[in-house]
Amino acid sequence: MGIIPKSLKTLTLELQRLPGIGPKSARRIAYFLFSLPQERLTFLGDSFKDLKQSVTTCSFCNMLADTNPCEVCGDATRELTSLCVVADHMDVYAIERTAGYKGMYFVLGGLLSPVKGHGPADIAGAGLIKRLHQLKKMQKNNNRLEVIFALSPTTEGQTTALYLKEELKNEFGDNLLLSRVAVGISVGTDIDYVDTYTLQEALKGRSLL
Amino acid sequence: MGIIPKSLKTLTLELQRLPGIGPKSARRIAYFLFSLPQERLTFLGDSFKDLKQSVTTCSFCNMLADTNPCEVCGDATRELTSLCVVADHMDVYAIERTAGYKGMYFVLGGLLSPVKGHGPADIAGAGLIKRLHQLKKMQKNNNRLEVIFALSPTTEGQTTALYLKEELKNEFGDNLLLSRVAVGISVGTDIDYVDTYTLQEALKGRSLL
Repeated sequence: MGIIPKSLKTLTLELQRLPGIGPKSARRIAYFLFSLPQERLTFLGDSFKDLKQSVTTCSFCNMLADTNPCEVCGDATRELTSLCVVADHMDVYAIERTAGYKGMYFVLGGLLSPVKGHGPADIAGAGLIKRLHQLKKMQKNNNRLEVIFALSPTTEGQTTALYLKEELKNEFGDNLLLSRVAVGISVGTDIDYVDTYTLQEALKGRSLL
Repeated sequence: MGIIPKSLKTLTLELQRLPGIGPKSARRIAYFLFSLPQERLTFLGDSFKDLKQSVTTCSFCNMLADTNPCEVCGDATRELTSLCVVADHMDVYAIERTAGYKGMYFVLGGLLSPVKGHGPADIAGAGLIKRLHQLKKMQKNNNRLEVIFALSPTTEGQTTALYLKEELKNEFGDNLLLSRVAVGISVGTDIDYVDTYTLQEALKGRSLL
């Protein structure tokens, strides 16, 4: 429609390209934005333009952060006895929200996936080995070092865990404790709603009362 | 969480203030934006900042437009025999999408609402009268001039239509044909799903087969 002002039309089309925003929401948001005072629009516009400016990547764990080392790697109170390996920085936020983990993290930046053509070069396997050597060196009295794989229980997550397990065995022998997060029934779920695969895993991973 | 980079946190909070975007969508969109190349972010940022720059208001119909007169008011092929009165410019887009109306528009910019404290000063009643005088003058052979009220069939819409009807009668006597869009059952709706009020109106407004 030629009757819609060009700038509004452009913004509506741009907003539609964002995840989860359809044509109607995009139009609604565009007109809402139009109703805002200019200084808010300028502020928002600058937030978009400067989004990446101050963000860096932690050279220890690969996390997006304001500083290098990031807040976790630079925190002297975190435990150096465990390293939690995740696919993505969003997974770190999820685990930090539980407030139950006090160790370190390492972000792989992806998972192995033959289907999507993601091979070992697409994940930070070498970085993980380097980071584990660092942690070993930082430990004073040769404590045990646990590597916790917090990868999604999908084919991709499991393939990646198995691949890294082999790599770490080759590099460190039996000097590392390797584990993965439990696969089982979500809290609050009725058992008859659980899929067969999850139920199988939950039975296998049962614990004594 | 201190571990989320500041610029991402700021943008996530800003996105949450947009209509229809909750905390989860906001985070998802913020990280999606972070993954975009800088030139796309710059383009998006400028779209926000420049949103209002080139937009003007048509002095004939009150529509937001790139030009004054707007595309409809400046179009010599549109019929000057009818003026469709709407509350908001979004309503004009909705009617234009039907591609069935060839007359002119007038945007009131609101509806009367005692509850919200919106009185006659909050709608462009005087502008409507001025516009109708203009159209009268432009008509060569004193054609009939129809004013179609396309206002929502709510208390506010009906109050506004009644108020404007009185104003127009005072100003133009019986020289105008006043109408309102039909209230009835939506296309494709089962009658037993229709609310009582709509069904009442649909019966009142029945037409001969």
